[in-house]
Amino acid sequence: MATIGVLHPGAMGAAVGAALAQAGHEVLWVAAGRSAATASRARAAGLTDAGSLDALLRSSAVVLSICPPDAAASVAEAAAGFDGIYVDANAISPQRAAEIAHLVGPAYVDGGIVGPPPQRPGTTRLYLSGDPGPARAVAALFDGTALEARVLDGHGATAASALKMAYAAWTKGSAALLLAAERAAAALGVHDALHEEWARSQPELEARLAAAGASAAAKGWRWVGEMREIAATFEAAGQPGGFHRAAADVFAAFPRPAGDEPVPAS
Amino acid sequence: MATIGVLHPGAMGAAVGAALAQAGHEVLWVAAGRSAATASRARAAGLTDAGSLDALLRSSAVVLSICPPDAAASVAEAAAGFDGIYVDANAISPQRAAEIAHLVGPAYVDGGIVGPPPQRPGTTRLYLSGDPGPARAVAALFDGTALEARVLDGHGATAASALKMAYAAWTKGSAALLLAAERAAAALGVHDALHEEWARSQPELEARLAAAGASAAAKGWRWVGEMREIAATFEAAGQPGGFHRAAADVFAAFPRPAGDEPVPAS
Repeated sequence: MATIGVLHPGAMGAAVGAALAQAGHEVLWVAAGRSAATASRARAAGLTDAGSLDALLRSSAVVLSICPPDAAASVAEAAAGFDGIYVDANAISPQRAAEIAHLVGPAYVDGGIVGPPPQRPGTTRLYLSGDPGPARAVAALFDGTALEARVLDGHGATAASALKMAYAAWTKGSAALLLAAERAAAALGVHDALHEEWARSQPELEARLAAAGASAAAKGWRWVGEMREIAATFEAAGQPGGFHRAAADVFAAFPRPAGDEPVPAS
Repeated sequence: MATIGVLHPGAMGAAVGAALAQAGHEVLWVAAGRSAATASRARAAGLTDAGSLDALLRSSAVVLSICPPDAAASVAEAAAGFDGIYVDANAISPQRAAEIAHLVGPAYVDGGIVGPPPQRPGTTRLYLSGDPGPARAVAALFDGTALEARVLDGHGATAASALKMAYAAWTKGSAALLLAAERAAAALGVHDALHEEWARSQPELEARLAAAGASAAAKGWRWVGEMREIAATFEAAGQPGGFHRAAADVFAAFPRPAGDEPVPAS
């Protein structure tokens, strides 16, 4: 059993930490500066407050960075000198992952999480890439947990981030596109006619629109940075970045719900 | 029964003309300058060559403009002086429709076609907006045909174009987004991993990707202008234009298939 640090658990980080704790690992986090709601969620997840970042880094064999994409680089910087395996599991472009790998050194493992916070097996995958040794060691931590860890062997050091970007490009990008199309129709006074036409020829879109609206209302403000990461990923891969720069604008229009705490950078 | 001119029948215009011809109307077109393949399709559709644009305009009570969006304004200009009902049924922004309405005068009817070239009832709608009198007169031409004409009463003069834009924003915009996401994954070397993840959590995407690729290969080059019209529509409606400027870039990368004729502007 290992000691694993999680920086900095929001809903996803707490669920990943809970999976590790249930498997018998000791899971550390840093409570300082976080809200009472976050602390209560971490306790429920079986996480232990290390007291400080330094203490967490000294005690942990593996650190998982699970935070907003904008914070990924500064979380890595704050962990400078950590001599265990550092996993960045954030929704960041492969370029940014490569920058963080450079910062962290040879024990960097790239990660990408696909699916909701894992509560039961089968919903969520943690993709891992990088040196096979450390990547497999990280995957083994999740054996028997609700989070399925998959090593992308032979796919390059930042393949996990690339896969996460390409996957979310559709799921979140298409949600933003649908929301924007329906809002444009409303602004142009053809909202009812669009819904009638959808009912005839695109009957799945009502449910898809409702799901997109509910997700965006809850989490849209947190997806702005991820959309910009996807835009940068597309541009580096020879595809236009405009889809996801537009999606960032759509999600930026959703206010942060009361009580939803921004995750600290370090 | 009326005499109706169609400017300038491609696949959609020929099918719309065929619907009118089957209902007993005389349907005119102008063969001059068009390919043998187009002439053969027009003949099969039961369309009559008027010999010249002037002759078509002199003989027709109604003119339908069905052409690429980039050509819509110049087709309308070339019809200057026509004193019947002029229907622009193209995939253009409401702003461009308003400009054409201004050019044409009070007998302008705005149109928007949703669905494939109509071969049998139930697949395709011709939305119409503008003055109720002329709009209803146009709709009545299609009674009993494979093309269902629907007047958007009380929705404003350019509602048909607005509806077409909002509808195609999703159908074609989402196709471009999916193609771009898969190409980005391929460029980043995670193509196989993306398809495996899709198979688990987004099983509908393989079929959707195949359909998007087939449509784009056949018609993508013709959708570039339509994507730019949608981008302009979004921006005028307070939504970001980037989705469809990016979609225009994606579709512009598809070459024009051999034998696919650009429709003349006038």
